[in-house]
Amino acid sequence: MMALPLSSHIQPERLWADLMELGAITDPDRPYTRRSFSDRFLEGRAWLCGRLEQAGLTCRTDTAGNLIGRRTAALPSARTIMTGSHSDTVPAGGRFDGILGVLAGVEIARAMQDCGAALSHHFEVIDFLAEEPSDFGLSCIGSRGMTDSLTAGHLALRAPWGESLADAMTRMGGNPADLACARRHDIAAFMELHIEQGRVLERAGTDIGIVDAIAGVTRIEVIFAGRADHAGTTPMDCRQDALVAAAGMVTTVSHLARDAARSGEGHVTATCGVMEVQPNASNVVPRQARLVIDIRVSERETRERLVARFRTAAADLAAEAHVTLAGFEIQSDTRPVACNPVLAGELETAARILGLSSRRMVSGAGHDAAFMARIAPSAMLFIPCRDGRSHDPDEWITSHDAANGTRVLADAIMAADRMP
Amino acid sequence: MMALPLSSHIQPERLWADLMELGAITDPDRPYTRRSFSDRFLEGRAWLCGRLEQAGLTCRTDTAGNLIGRRTAALPSARTIMTGSHSDTVPAGGRFDGILGVLAGVEIARAMQDCGAALSHHFEVIDFLAEEPSDFGLSCIGSRGMTDSLTAGHLALRAPWGESLADAMTRMGGNPADLACARRHDIAAFMELHIEQGRVLERAGTDIGIVDAIAGVTRIEVIFAGRADHAGTTPMDCRQDALVAAAGMVTTVSHLARDAARSGEGHVTATCGVMEVQPNASNVVPRQARLVIDIRVSERETRERLVARFRTAAADLAAEAHVTLAGFEIQSDTRPVACNPVLAGELETAARILGLSSRRMVSGAGHDAAFMARIAPSAMLFIPCRDGRSHDPDEWITSHDAANGTRVLADAIMAADRMP
Repeated sequence: MMALPLSSHIQPERLWADLMELGAITDPDRPYTRRSFSDRFLEGRAWLCGRLEQAGLTCRTDTAGNLIGRRTAALPSARTIMTGSHSDTVPAGGRFDGILGVLAGVEIARAMQDCGAALSHHFEVIDFLAEEPSDFGLSCIGSRGMTDSLTAGHLALRAPWGESLADAMTRMGGNPADLACARRHDIAAFMELHIEQGRVLERAGTDIGIVDAIAGVTRIEVIFAGRADHAGTTPMDCRQDALVAAAGMVTTVSHLARDAARSGEGHVTATCGVMEVQPNASNVVPRQARLVIDIRVSERETRERLVARFRTAAADLAAEAHVTLAGFEIQSDTRPVACNPVLAGELETAARILGLSSRRMVSGAGHDAAFMARIAPSAMLFIPCRDGRSHDPDEWITSHDAANGTRVLADAIMAADRMP
Repeated sequence: MMALPLSSHIQPERLWADLMELGAITDPDRPYTRRSFSDRFLEGRAWLCGRLEQAGLTCRTDTAGNLIGRRTAALPSARTIMTGSHSDTVPAGGRFDGILGVLAGVEIARAMQDCGAALSHHFEVIDFLAEEPSDFGLSCIGSRGMTDSLTAGHLALRAPWGESLADAMTRMGGNPADLACARRHDIAAFMELHIEQGRVLERAGTDIGIVDAIAGVTRIEVIFAGRADHAGTTPMDCRQDALVAAAGMVTTVSHLARDAARSGEGHVTATCGVMEVQPNASNVVPRQARLVIDIRVSERETRERLVARFRTAAADLAAEAHVTLAGFEIQSDTRPVACNPVLAGELETAARILGLSSRRMVSGAGHDAAFMARIAPSAMLFIPCRDGRSHDPDEWITSHDAANGTRVLADAIMAADRMP
């Protein structure tokens, strides 16, 4: 007799109740907030640890500060299949970003417990430390720690209150002096369920997004330096208006990115989200304008081409406005990460068998999976979120979609467990 | 025997020493600062009052808070010729903007005293209260008061420290309950000497600017409202990026104003000096962008045409970026003011007789003379200032230019005195 798939043991109400319960652990004055390294975060983790243990997992915190619940296989030398995400939030964030991936892992562990599933791999559910940008100016701290991607410079970063990241990680139960111990060599597969944080699935009416790649992020700070002059007495043709150059840059970035996206070069976005003008007074010609360009692409060549074109445009716009291009600095730059095609295929198959529609897509947002891909076959799946909202108290998913994603993940985990 | 012109009694060293002495009365931590309504401002006025009295003038403060030194004519029923400007500064401003006009008046009074000039008009030197934007969000308070242009709403304005403008004017020696008393009907001519605050005279190597008109100022607040979305997960063609619309607006304003100025429509400037983006985060598509357009024109029709074209462009740019034009509000609007052509002619003649070069020009900056023109024939003259700088500690003029301007003003005052 063929056993029922693991997905048939997923209980949507139980998963939803957990989402609401963890959501209620929030700074009361600004829901939904559980900032990494805060007491509130530890309160959430204590609750989570209870849930993991009820699901039959053994809890520990690794030296990188990640909370891990483990279900051991019969064979001690077996490798591990890991799932999870993060339980920290941005300030005034939502109840699902990251959290869904962790609690789906809990529900899958419960389903395994309920049906007495026997896996040939160890199974772990992980809550990575500080995936969101933290008060140390760093994100994905736990997944960096697990993948040998935390430097001494990172550990020396200080929060506004003066504490070093190393000390804060210790306070979270980690041991940054022994980070090597967090580095894993036994992971056969890592899979992460997440909300899309965009509107692609919702608009297309698609149940599941199978992530092909996680886009690389390049941040460029551009500074135009002109001359502050009286707005009334300085003739138009004698001006060195820094904002005129910066405005041209915003237009150029938007147009070139749109053209690249239309021409089918994979995932391409480019955004000027930051614009600051000095002195920012209505009767003074702007002396300085600073902007930050955020580029996300799935193809590295597109990144090279866009950066080169933005650089040329910035120089041309500066010359045209008689201002100086005082800065064009690449502040950060991560490469696109491809997901493991075999695991992505298992996710796709699991969705199809469950009768769910799916589409391949690129994640424009960064995730712990991008670091995990450095040490293990990794994959991600998305479910729709209402109106694409995230990092906002209005972030919302349906219980139905949460269950869909969890079911696909459960069956893909079992498929991975059967792989040689 | 023909008497020497009054200008021959102007002593450049004495005038320059006064400029330096009043400049030294500054908030010590941010030269040069004498903010209206401050104790430092009153300290400057006490010094100024001493200078006016030494020059043979009788000092009083009118009910609008203007400090006035008066030299009476033999005939009590004579009308008055007035000159002056303002002694207050912007924060960290200069030593000449406004101040030159007041101290030139003091030097002219001394010259009259030295040569025993007998005028058929009363002669007054005025220090208008609070010409610069004050802590009440209002400028030209004294000249508004003298010209029946202060409303009850103005008097109820409050400074950040809670004081009403009416109370602050009282503290400066005024009596806002009896403003009618400050309204003058006896002024035969008002003439104001000022630094140019631009680079037109310096670039052309011209000694004196004769002001034909003071440009009107229109300020428009434009707000584009889009949607805050994740910069990485929102495809380029699904965005409602408020900054993309605002950037197009900055470009449009600059281009249209440059075209209008080139096509010879008199004085035309238009500036976006303020740009504010919400939430102004590198990984978020801008939800809102606010900008302020400052338009200065000498021809009212140009103002109408520019405002109409900016309004159309704002609507078009909003539609193109799929955002809402949430605001297009005219915050303030003053009409261009023509100077009195007879007085301007006398200034031009005086310059020519003194062997100084001059040119007609439009003041792009606002001045007390624009209000005085409502109640009396009024005119202005400019001298060059280094590199066009003003509202800055580096503001600078030469003693030679200061004396040139004062001499032209002195002889034009005597010419006005001889007019029927």
